[in-house]
Amino acid sequence: MRLLTGDRPTGRLHLGHYVGSLKKRVELQDKYETYLLVADLHMLTTKLEKADIQKVLDNARGMVLDHLACGIDPAKVTIYLQSAVPEIYELNLICEMLVTVNRLSRLPSLKDMARAAHITEMPFGLLGYPVLQAADILLPRAHVVPVGKDNAAHVEITREIAGRFNRLYGEVFPEPELLLGDVPTLVGTDGKQKMSKSLNNAIFLSDDAATVEKKIRATFTDPKRVHADVPGTVEGNPVFIYHDAFNDDRAEVADLKERYQRGGVGDAEVKAKLTAAINRFLAPLRERYARYEKDPALVDRILLDGTEKMREVARATMKEVRSAMGIGSAWNRLRKAAERRAKEG
Amino acid sequence: MRLLTGDRPTGRLHLGHYVGSLKKRVELQDKYETYLLVADLHMLTTKLEKADIQKVLDNARGMVLDHLACGIDPAKVTIYLQSAVPEIYELNLICEMLVTVNRLSRLPSLKDMARAAHITEMPFGLLGYPVLQAADILLPRAHVVPVGKDNAAHVEITREIAGRFNRLYGEVFPEPELLLGDVPTLVGTDGKQKMSKSLNNAIFLSDDAATVEKKIRATFTDPKRVHADVPGTVEGNPVFIYHDAFNDDRAEVADLKERYQRGGVGDAEVKAKLTAAINRFLAPLRERYARYEKDPALVDRILLDGTEKMREVARATMKEVRSAMGIGSAWNRLRKAAERRAKEG
Repeated sequence: MRLLTGDRPTGRLHLGHYVGSLKKRVELQDKYETYLLVADLHMLTTKLEKADIQKVLDNARGMVLDHLACGIDPAKVTIYLQSAVPEIYELNLICEMLVTVNRLSRLPSLKDMARAAHITEMPFGLLGYPVLQAADILLPRAHVVPVGKDNAAHVEITREIAGRFNRLYGEVFPEPELLLGDVPTLVGTDGKQKMSKSLNNAIFLSDDAATVEKKIRATFTDPKRVHADVPGTVEGNPVFIYHDAFNDDRAEVADLKERYQRGGVGDAEVKAKLTAAINRFLAPLRERYARYEKDPALVDRILLDGTEKMREVARATMKEVRSAMGIGSAWNRLRKAAERRAKEG
Repeated sequence: MRLLTGDRPTGRLHLGHYVGSLKKRVELQDKYETYLLVADLHMLTTKLEKADIQKVLDNARGMVLDHLACGIDPAKVTIYLQSAVPEIYELNLICEMLVTVNRLSRLPSLKDMARAAHITEMPFGLLGYPVLQAADILLPRAHVVPVGKDNAAHVEITREIAGRFNRLYGEVFPEPELLLGDVPTLVGTDGKQKMSKSLNNAIFLSDDAATVEKKIRATFTDPKRVHADVPGTVEGNPVFIYHDAFNDDRAEVADLKERYQRGGVGDAEVKAKLTAAINRFLAPLRERYARYEKDPALVDRILLDGTEKMREVARATMKEVRSAMGIGSAWNRLRKAAERRAKEG
């Protein structure tokens, strides 16, 4: 059973990404033949400026490195760059014929994306975002796609496109199953918004111990607690959310919470223990970062190898697509006819 | 100066096509470096059934043969099959980012196409028809596109996309000029509708002399003229429209018109002279058809050679596009970096 997952290469990954998807991906790689897409072409739907495009390759490398540091195993997972698999463009055009404008226009997610990117008039390519996603999923003929509620509607469109294709031309694509799960979000160190690079409230997976300490020291807590003996609130408090997510010493977390609620612990202690916990959590990642740092070409090689492997998969899929549809193979048929005639003549 | 023109391969061509576009194309091939596109991918926007797709290659061959018979010279004109130039898919996706949904939705032509094809809900791919056309025009970096009024709005969109691309990434594409001209239509032999294969009212360029005679004999004329001595109407009368379009003996046409209007000529004479005129007009085409019949692989070879040439042009364009944008070249940059490091290591 093949599984497709992936991200747009927007920058280095942080604890929020880990909680939201990376943790799950590391588990899933043992259950499925996993394809991890670095979706650089999807960047174009909202970021067309040359300066943005120029960051894509470095972002892609960072994204791959962060996945590897979390424990994604390139021996199990095919990690590949979308724009380097030209078959995606061809399958995208075919998928575009199999879905209506109305179906896509009803998706609120695309309007949200446009708004977030300060785009006032919907680009045709952004309305086609779920179509390109369908091509992403169908190209490796994935059986399973892990999604949160936000993206479930997009995978539904993939299922419809696959079904329509199969009914028209014969069974080529599995209708991918949604592996629906929570995509937990993590609050940023400002305690206000979701952790996000652009909001400058993120602790990165690649932050060193000193940086983690500094960021935790500046993390928002309960503002009522002007002194250590003021009873504090644990719920929605970033430091305790982080303790819950990353501190493997559950007894320590329970003790800290109890003392915090009755005004029996200072922020300094809560934060020092959180820093230690996050640094414990990041220790195995740092070991892997160090390994990749010693061989700076390794990430590139992993991406190249994965892309090469995906290209083979893509060629095989498109061979079946063309033969089922009878389009895109005219060139080969022409050439073969010419060769046959040349032999006879 | 490069010129792009082309058609969807819908079937064999008839006198209506000659009057509407082929005549002009034969003239233009001496003035411009001409690219003639066999737009098989555009067929998918309205015809998705496998049975329709299977006709495409034969239709493409017929379309090319009919162009050659009319005097299109493959030494001057690059004749190529759209689906066999994979760069079109890539450029299409890029163009999709550079135009808005609203801009495309305002085009009445697409709604007309949907209606004509009995499509009730606009497919995303059909709304993208002008975008794929833009990619068609931009791939050979055409300077000039001959269009009728109906299609002028589509080429306007190409100009906008080219302009937007150039402003974002630097000057890569000429903004193609519209070579606006009449696209005269020809009435069918039924005297009611435009000549069209599907209406069974067409005289094909490849019809033999006997078929032309039979079709002209059945052609609609002035229904008032129950006898040869009844004065008839020349205006809007198919046989005189055909005389005007194809009879090179202008004196004969003038004489027939004059006698027809005063009831001085029988339909039989008018039609016999028309048959002779059309067969005179078709004589050089028939010579060329005979030449291609002797070497049935020649049309395929011309299409293969043209496509091969267009692929080179396409590769050169996309190399510039990728280098200007910085997308789609990540693969090469990765590979080069890996090779450089391997050498150093």
